[in-house]
Amino acid sequence: MTYRVRCRVSYDGGNYSGFQRQNNAATIQGQIEKSLFKIHREQIKIYAASRTDAKVHANDQVFHFDTELVLKESRWKLAINTYLPNDIYIKEVAFVDQSFHSRFSVWKKKYRYVINIGEYSPLDRERELYLRKKIDFEKISQQLPCLVGEHDFKSFTSSVYDNYVRQIYKAEVEIKDNKLIFTFIGSGFMRYMVRIIVGTLIDIGVGKRDDLKGIIDSKNRNEAGDCVSAHGLYLEQIWYLGGE
Amino acid sequence: MTYRVRCRVSYDGGNYSGFQRQNNAATIQGQIEKSLFKIHREQIKIYAASRTDAKVHANDQVFHFDTELVLKESRWKLAINTYLPNDIYIKEVAFVDQSFHSRFSVWKKKYRYVINIGEYSPLDRERELYLRKKIDFEKISQQLPCLVGEHDFKSFTSSVYDNYVRQIYKAEVEIKDNKLIFTFIGSGFMRYMVRIIVGTLIDIGVGKRDDLKGIIDSKNRNEAGDCVSAHGLYLEQIWYLGGE
Repeated sequence: MTYRVRCRVSYDGGNYSGFQRQNNAATIQGQIEKSLFKIHREQIKIYAASRTDAKVHANDQVFHFDTELVLKESRWKLAINTYLPNDIYIKEVAFVDQSFHSRFSVWKKKYRYVINIGEYSPLDRERELYLRKKIDFEKISQQLPCLVGEHDFKSFTSSVYDNYVRQIYKAEVEIKDNKLIFTFIGSGFMRYMVRIIVGTLIDIGVGKRDDLKGIIDSKNRNEAGDCVSAHGLYLEQIWYLGGE
Repeated sequence: MTYRVRCRVSYDGGNYSGFQRQNNAATIQGQIEKSLFKIHREQIKIYAASRTDAKVHANDQVFHFDTELVLKESRWKLAINTYLPNDIYIKEVAFVDQSFHSRFSVWKKKYRYVINIGEYSPLDRERELYLRKKIDFEKISQQLPCLVGEHDFKSFTSSVYDNYVRQIYKAEVEIKDNKLIFTFIGSGFMRYMVRIIVGTLIDIGVGKRDDLKGIIDSKNRNEAGDCVSAHGLYLEQIWYLGGE
């Protein structure tokens, strides 16, 4: 009999070439599958909600795998963590129905992006983007709501997709202790999409661009800003249909 | 003519064998003196308020050096930072009187120690001690005030000093987001003193020891707890006589 196991995992992306398995680079998936191999003595493939890019962090990524091994949920958590390095941590393990799929059952996802606009902090250098520029917070706040809703976000990715339409439910920014903290909740995000949106918002904040709606409408990558560093980005939460 | 230059510096201690220069290991002092060498083309020695141990962090360490080179304060800051790695950062440079000495003019110092008693966090693993034990916060809060005042702290160091008497002005603990945050302000701290005090307080919190006053009075290192990990410790602030 096969069981489907869902895991919630947090990680420091700093040492990895992203989530997805690669042959010649350390990845989060690679580490987790290595741990599962040690437990099963055979290859077990995992499926994740998001294939986060190199250096991107996660406070709550989700993946699942199928297994015939019978262990209690708490034992699974302990077993997988035992063979993981200390920059990846399984927070929770639960048994789920075979109809659940970490990627295809996703309802919405939350990302956070952190920019330090105060004094440079050596201790946070791999946890935030440090920006020396003077930034107009009000300008960013005013334009941000344009992102909310169903839009074609082709301007904010360099990758090729069949369909560039995504739903953004929430786009917010707050200032706290000299940090700009962006929160985006959406149905899904294309590759580099959050980081290019943030790069565009920085351009707006420094006065280099000023019409976010026009940039969206152009469906032209050249109209948007740069893709900002990965180490300021956090996958924060995944919601599933049916509340799982 | 010689000028005395005082610098405030923050660093991530994670990659270093402590502050003090060593011949065959990377240290904070070594990095800063290397930067000053590049600026002066000759060896410049620095004097710091605290010789923090390997892996200990600083949000506000102070050092000074003497130089004949004439540069504005803001240029000094830029110049030294230019040749420093990104885990060490000069926050402020000021010219001071020759009577000022980073170490001998110290009035008091503040240290912070952070313990995560909640869920393990891969992102903070080098910024806090992770403690899986159930800890009685009230017990710790009750005993903590015993440390305040002038005491012989021989129980809390393994090193040899002429005099083990130190003045502690403040010893506090708070719980915030499942983190125990200890703050100690004192005239000076002996080697490992803060970490052994925290180790002893953990023992009190888990019920392994219960008489902090008795432990102080014993003047016996064996009566105190273990020296906890360096990566949870932060040198937070240095105060000087005359308010500098």
